[in-house]
Amino acid sequence: MTGTPSLNSPSPTPLSLLGLGDMGTALARAWLAAGHPLTVWNRTPAKAEPLAAEGAHRAASAAEAVAAADLVVLCLLDDASVGETLQGADLRGKDLVNLTTSTPALSRARAAWAQERGARFLDGGIMAVPPMVGVPEAGGYIFYSGDAGLFDRHAKTLGAPVGARYVGADAGHAALYDVALLSAMTGMFAGVTHAFALMRAEKDVAPTEFAEPLAGWLRAMAGMIGGVAHQLESGDYTDGVVSNLAMVSTGNTTLLETAREQGVSGELLTPYMDLMRRRVEQGHGAEGLAGLVDLLRDAAAAGVR
Amino acid sequence: MTGTPSLNSPSPTPLSLLGLGDMGTALARAWLAAGHPLTVWNRTPAKAEPLAAEGAHRAASAAEAVAAADLVVLCLLDDASVGETLQGADLRGKDLVNLTTSTPALSRARAAWAQERGARFLDGGIMAVPPMVGVPEAGGYIFYSGDAGLFDRHAKTLGAPVGARYVGADAGHAALYDVALLSAMTGMFAGVTHAFALMRAEKDVAPTEFAEPLAGWLRAMAGMIGGVAHQLESGDYTDGVVSNLAMVSTGNTTLLETAREQGVSGELLTPYMDLMRRRVEQGHGAEGLAGLVDLLRDAAAAGVR
Ligand SMILES: NC(=O)c1ccc[n+]([C@@H]2O[C@H](COP(=O)([O-])OP(=O)(O)OC[C@H]3O[C@@H](n4cnc5c(N)ncnc54)[C@H](OP(=O)(O)O)[C@@H]3O)[C@@H](O)[C@H]2O)c1
Ligand SMILES: NC(=O)c1ccc[n+]([C@@H]2O[C@H](COP(=O)([O-])OP(=O)(O)OC[C@H]3O[C@@H](n4cnc5c(N)ncnc54)[C@H](OP(=O)(O)O)[C@@H]3O)[C@@H](O)[C@H]2O)c1
Repeated sequence: MTGTPSLNSPSPTPLSLLGLGDMGTALARAWLAAGHPLTVWNRTPAKAEPLAAEGAHRAASAAEAVAAADLVVLCLLDDASVGETLQGADLRGKDLVNLTTSTPALSRARAAWAQERGARFLDGGIMAVPPMVGVPEAGGYIFYSGDAGLFDRHAKTLGAPVGARYVGADAGHAALYDVALLSAMTGMFAGVTHAFALMRAEKDVAPTEFAEPLAGWLRAMAGMIGGVAHQLESGDYTDGVVSNLAMVSTGNTTLLETAREQGVSGELLTPYMDLMRRRVEQGHGAEGLAGLVDLLRDAAAAGVR
Repeated sequence: MTGTPSLNSPSPTPLSLLGLGDMGTALARAWLAAGHPLTVWNRTPAKAEPLAAEGAHRAASAAEAVAAADLVVLCLLDDASVGETLQGADLRGKDLVNLTTSTPALSRARAAWAQERGARFLDGGIMAVPPMVGVPEAGGYIFYSGDAGLFDRHAKTLGAPVGARYVGADAGHAALYDVALLSAMTGMFAGVTHAFALMRAEKDVAPTEFAEPLAGWLRAMAGMIGGVAHQLESGDYTDGVVSNLAMVSTGNTTLLETAREQGVSGELLTPYMDLMRRRVEQGHGAEGLAGLVDLLRDAAAAGVR
């Protein structure tokens, strides 16, 4: 605290990072590259060696790493490893940022746990893979939720490795956004897998040739998501519908018949098609897709899986 | 054939259109707007009335509509209605373009049927909804496959209502591309439905607020489709993998646990997750997604649905 710090370019905030797996190591490198004094710790100490050579301070224990900075970031395997790792540490007054993947309920419980121990808590859900970290043009980012003051205070530091998006005070929301996006992606790749399987029998269509219209189509159709959201928000599920459920459901016959012709199992698509058929049978054939969201929740309430 | 036709701007080609449902009517309007002399026919004659008022010629029968022009376009309900409609018509020397949705096998059979009757045949799969027809900036288009000469000769006419993409001489390929893209979209919207259902319990997250990151994420992840195609083409399913199957499969536990917490059935995602698990169990955990395409074909061969 000597000298006259410039208000315009304060020196980079010191921080500690616990967990040096693939993701933690990528984050560590990005913070080092941005000039942050960085203390690191990993359960298996060998993983800290290359980072030490690149300028990181190595802590001998998790508790020592926590003590070394006000801002403490965790990037461990799962929530259980967070509990184990922090059990001997003094968390009072710390700004704790947990980038470990977990469920919304576990994130909320971990936030309460940290607050009981005197820490402020921010949860993160990483929407990137390690090669995207430190590469702004790769477009990766982290959803953050929890303590708004903590986020605001450290927004610049948190935004150094990848983008940072704050999604609310509920500590569970970062995990929820994270999982919701990954779930939607899972569905998209189920569809992509089915589509490639359909083309597989055609020796004269190269997968890379087909990939271009496929990706373009899905990008264009992602433009319909806003319409579904508007329907969910207004409660009017027939608002702005162009292809109604009855029409789409009838068209599904052609999709399944083509799958049969091409020797592809329809198993990845049939649960959603069944949901459409049930909704149409309930008299909602004139609607768009929004009503399927309710039906899927009802299905869970009725004990399907 | 009088006067001196300009080579640079030949007068728009005359054509006949059979089928004036929602899509046929939109196509008819686009061709009229582009100045094409247009003869129309519809089983239920009343649907031709507004178009006649807009300048279309009405044919009294399907056979008369076919006789009225060299280029004959069909946009009917299904392949069976094409057979019924054309049974009394003289197809010799006609350029027949069938925009009726069908499966690849039906399109191939219809192509052979038309050729036996002396017609050239081009099949189309429409990647647009009626409001996109005649609106170039809406980005709709039609996949065409079959007679290349027919396509080249009429490319400009066919491209008037929406874009035109030729995908090969196999008359079944337009339908196959069409169905493959719709199938992938079905998967994507299954995922989107699941994602919205997860958020539904959160009263403080508006669906329209969540729609923006969701759509952005799916658009970004569509960028991974090219990588899957390269793997399928090279046969090396570990090439360029960042998130391998084993990692993704482990992460699926968090997705399903979150679904349970949020009161959402996992039924739309579990078939694809099961496919991943099986592939990992077969020893392919280090691969990307390409191997799932093969597994899905094997599943069909083994009689799953
Ligand atoms: N990699 C990705 O693409 C990606 C993307 C988004 C989110 N994430 C999330 O980021 C987090 C880290 O991922 P990663 O890829 O870095 O995983 P990883 O390479 O498998 O590393 C796991 C880390 O957790 C540590 N760990 C595991 N159990 C522990 C315990 N009981 N106590 C203390 N430390 C323990 C490991 O320490 P050892 O070295 O001692 O084993 C290692 O540092 C995970 O929650 C993951 O879901 C990863
Ligand atoms: N609408 C879309 O969003 C869309 C998008 C892509 C592709 N398509 C495809 O375009 C085609 C037409 O769709 P559309 O939306 O126009 O359908 P539509 O509004 O239901 O119209 C169906 C048309 O088929 C005719 N038809 C049905 N059965 C017939 C038969 N046995 N003989 C003669 N004519 C018969 C109907 O005549 P009547 O008037 O006498 O009933 C009507 O002209 C379908 O193959 C559809 O899959 C539509």
